[in-house]
Formats: sequence, structure tokens, C-alpha cells
Amino acid sequence: MSDTSAYSSLKKVVGSKTSLLAGAEGIIETVETLPSDVLVSAIVGSAGLLPTLSAIRKGIRVAIANKEPLVMAGRLMTSSAGENGSTIIPIDSEHSAIWQCLNGEPEERVKRILLTASGGPFLNKTAKQLEKVKTEDALKHPKWKMGKKITIDSSTLMNKGLEVIEARWLFGLPPEKIEVIVHPQSVVHSMVEFVDRSVMAQLGRPDMYVPIAYALSYPDRWPAPLKSLDITKEGRLDFLPPDRKKFPCLQLAYTALEKGGVYPAALNGANEVAVELFLSKKIGYTDIPKLIRKVLGKISPGNDDNLASIIETDLEAREMAYSFAS
Amino acid sequence: MSDTSAYSSLKKVVGSKTSLLAGAEGIIETVETLPSDVLVSAIVGSAGLLPTLSAIRKGIRVAIANKEPLVMAGRLMTSSAGENGSTIIPIDSEHSAIWQCLNGEPEERVKRILLTASGGPFLNKTAKQLEKVKTEDALKHPKWKMGKKITIDSSTLMNKGLEVIEARWLFGLPPEKIEVIVHPQSVVHSMVEFVDRSVMAQLGRPDMYVPIAYALSYPDRWPAPLKSLDITKEGRLDFLPPDRKKFPCLQLAYTALEKGGVYPAALNGANEVAVELFLSKKIGYTDIPKLIRKVLGKISPGNDDNLASIIETDLEAREMAYSFAS
Repeated sequence: MSDTSAYSSLKKVVGSKTSLLAGAEGIIETVETLPSDVLVSAIVGSAGLLPTLSAIRKGIRVAIANKEPLVMAGRLMTSSAGENGSTIIPIDSEHSAIWQCLNGEPEERVKRILLTASGGPFLNKTAKQLEKVKTEDALKHPKWKMGKKITIDSSTLMNKGLEVIEARWLFGLPPEKIEVIVHPQSVVHSMVEFVDRSVMAQLGRPDMYVPIAYALSYPDRWPAPLKSLDITKEGRLDFLPPDRKKFPCLQLAYTALEKGGVYPAALNGANEVAVELFLSKKIGYTDIPKLIRKVLGKISPGNDDNLASIIETDLEAREMAYSFAS
Repeated sequence: MSDTSAYSSLKKVVGSKTSLLAGAEGIIETVETLPSDVLVSAIVGSAGLLPTLSAIRKGIRVAIANKEPLVMAGRLMTSSAGENGSTIIPIDSEHSAIWQCLNGEPEERVKRILLTASGGPFLNKTAKQLEKVKTEDALKHPKWKMGKKITIDSSTLMNKGLEVIEARWLFGLPPEKIEVIVHPQSVVHSMVEFVDRSVMAQLGRPDMYVPIAYALSYPDRWPAPLKSLDITKEGRLDFLPPDRKKFPCLQLAYTALEKGGVYPAALNGANEVAVELFLSKKIGYTDIPKLIRKVLGKISPGNDDNLASIIETDLEAREMAYSFAS
């Protein structure tokens, strides 16, 4: 509720004895004052960053369903969690899978993690065909029903790129230990290879119930009123390497992560604008990575331990993206 | 060394100051007197039973590579382990996989375990074709290089049946929570479904190094000088239900487990004889399950808490199998 007149009207209705909280400050105040054991951070986009940080500073468990806070301010969030005794548990199905594969094993035992990607609806299209992709085509995801933004991100593999950045912070691993594997059936939600060459994987039906419940029940598991995965009905699972040339967004995410600092925040901001412009048919499908690359080339390096610098970069990247596209 | 004259000769050679241990008693004496942290039980067949029990009674960790002790005397071994503070860790690749998937999670969180089976070389043969299988055909396993006995067991699915019985004791689960899934590529070594419908799987290249090392290093993992699994090179993984009619040995194992008591010991003894007779071309391939079924129908129920009763049943089943075949 960002509308002040609506706030005033509501304030009159509830009266002076009831406290009325609204907007970003309201969320943060709720987090800070309400007694709680777990906070589920599920606000879409960068708006989730500040309330999530408040919960981390409170030292409680934070179950994180939105990518942006970790992509933008991963170092800040994880170091703050360490200082305040907070645990950040992922809800994203891939990261929940990795969390379950790790099951408390320390990072020095990890050889690499393997994030699985459905490959999106354009897995078998040629680079030439990708140039002709329409908004309507990109909105059809083969496996998961999701919002428009993430469906587009899924088709460009930027979603996987953002997940690589998330994984870097959630699991404290360098980019070279994070790999992406295309797995069109999306039954294996991700894998971890350990130093002894044993590979653990987490599998399941495409139902967010499981990772949400696990983030709340961890380290316990609660019985779920769901159907079991019948892997014999799936019959066949495929695995192939991703094509980083055909899907440059994945490579851009690795580049931003390797550059470090505020680059991931710039990547995220530029991507949000690029997707918005594609959805409103102002740019073409293959313009999405072009626009992001241009923004990353112009951004000034900044300090990712500094929240102000991160937020500034996010805004700067968005403005640049709009201006480059017009 | 069961030959007494050879023992006497050797005894003369080593002299009176060196103690010379030999035969079954020698193994047991070694287990009982030698200080050790872990015993790896890898004696083929039922001969491993007594030394393994000695190690369990000593309260040390027992890494178990042979199926027979658990198949024959699973209840006795696991209850003795519980009383003496011994941990039994599996080395069989499927059970090591399940052990890793469980990673300490208690059995009440387990919905079912899914033992994977390669399906053996005759997966796609018809029942009619199975009748004509020769010893040479059955000795060609598609994935693992193993001894003759286990290669035949693998082709009849008795190997998987014995593993179902092992799993029942290792993981304290009733037969209805243990399922078998055919997975010809043998990349997924087994899976566990938890009550929250999350499925964990362990994968790897077909190399026994990994489960052996894990049984020794557990709960740590040691870096291994091995190649990583490249799942994109495998490309495709298949999963299908087993055909218990075409492969009656699997069903016979479930039946023996459900009957309980000494029936699994009888199943194991009868199977060893049946395979031996098939290898020496005295019976046909499809006679293997027929012979075992006949033995199971005649065996007298006995107490599986009683070692003497188990050993007696094993001998009785073997004798019956020989007599029925001649």
C-alpha cells in the first residue's frame, strides 16, 4: 500500500487503538517487532531486500523464496547471517535440492554443485530461430506454471544464471564449482558431487509444496498430502550441457559473478528492465542479452558490502537499460 | 586353510614363537584379539557370518561387503549391533547409496526406499526365450564385472531380491517400504523417498572405490583419485518397473522375507546350490527359481534369533536343493 490517501482512510477506519503498518517501512517494522521463529521472504523483485536483511539481523531463520536479495546482496546477507546467527534456507526448488543433498556436510567436502535447468521452451531452436521468438512463445514454459518475469528468465536461461549467483552465496562456493546441466524433464531438481566422487541428487514432482515445507520443517521432514513421484512413469530422464552461445544470459551471469562487487545487482536490474521491455514488445527476444551486456559494460564497479552502493547500482542499471533501449 | 597337514607343516616352519591362525576359528580369533576400529567383512558366502558376528559383538564398526550374513541372520546381527554399540555400514553400492541418501535421517521419516536394478542381460527377453538361456549368456553382465555367482544372481534378479532382504535389516524397514526399480544404465545407485515426498538419490560411475571408501571414512568423505561422473555423457537414464513374473527370483525373495524366520537363510542356501548346478550345466536357467520355490515349500519354520537354527536351515536347504535336482 504505497498510496498515502488510502493509508489515511484506512487509519480512520481502524481507529487510533489499532496500529496500521503499510509499505516498505511497515514490512520492516513487522519483521523487527513481531516475535517469530522463521521469516519466509517471498516479495517479488528487489523490494524483498531490506525486509529480508532485517530478519537476518534479528538472527532468526530466513526461508528465502525470491532470488533478488541474494543476487543483489549475497555477500552482505550471508556475512550478516553469520554474525547474527541466522540461517538462510532456500525455497527455490534447485537450491532446496542442493541444501538437501548437502544435508549439513561442510563445503570442503563439495567438489561441485550441478544446477539442473529445464532448458526452457527454446532448447531445440537454432540461434536464427531465437531471433524470431515472440512474447507469446516465450511465455509457454514446458514444466512449471510461473509468473511472466520468471517464465521469460527461464527461456533465456537467465533464471539459471541468477540461480548460479544465489548458489554462490547460499553454499559459499566459487563460480567454478557451480555448473549448470540441462535436464528437460525437471525431475532431478539439482545435484552435488562430493570430493569422494559420490553424487547426491534430489528428485520430485514439480510441486513447490516440498521445498516450502522443508524450509519450515528443517532439519525434520513433515508428512505431505501429496502424490509420490513415480519415476517409472517418467520413464526417461535426459541430461545435456547448456549452450552458452545460444543462451548468452547464462554466460552474462557467470561474468557478473566473476567480476563480483555490484555487478550481479547490475545484471539483475538490467535484466528486469529488458524482460519488461520484451513483454511490452518494445525490444526483441535476442535484444534481452544484448541490452544486459551493454549495461554491464558501462557500470561503475562498487562495493557489495555497502547496501547504498548496491541499491544505487540497481537504479543506475535500470536507467541505463531504459535509455539504451529507447 | 582347512587342510590340517598343511597347517602342521606351516606350524613347523614358523616355529613356536609365532602364532599361526587358520580356518574359520583363525578368522574369529583374529577379529576377537586384534585391536581394530573397523572390520571390513568381505568373505564370500555364508562363511562370513560367524566372523562378522564376532566383530559386531566387539562393538566396532563393521563395513559389510558380503550379502549372506545379513540375508541369513539379519535380525540377529542388527539386534546384536544395537546391544553392543556397533554400527553396520553397507559397502554394496545400492545400500551405500541408501545409507548416503538417509545421511542419518531417522527411519520414521522414510516413506520407501527404491533399490535400483540394472535388469541384467535378459531384461528384454521373453519368458519363452529365458528357457533357452545358456550359462555363457548369463555370465555376461551389461555393467559390472563381478564373480560368476553374483553375475547369475544379477541376471535372475535374485541379487536384487537378496538386497531387498539386506535393506530390510540395514535400514529397519518392513518389506512393503522396499521397492525395486529397473534402471539399465546403473548410474543412479538407489533412492529414498521421504514422508515429505522428497526423493534423494545417490549417483556415480560403476566403481566400488566410492562405497568402500565411504564405509571407512563415514561420516567424513575422503578425496578420491577418480574421474567425476559426467551425466551429460550418459545422456539418458531409464526407469521401469521390474517384471516379477518373468523373474520369479525377485518375488521369491519378497516371499521369504514376508514369511520371516529362517526362510531368508533357506532362500539363500537353495539359491547358492541352484546357481552352482546351473553353472555346472546340471539344471536349466529357469530351473533356478523352480528349485528354490520347491525348497521354500518344504522347509520347516525356525527361529532367526537362534544362530544354530539358521545354520541348520542353511544346510537343510542346500541338501534339499541337491536332492530335488538329481
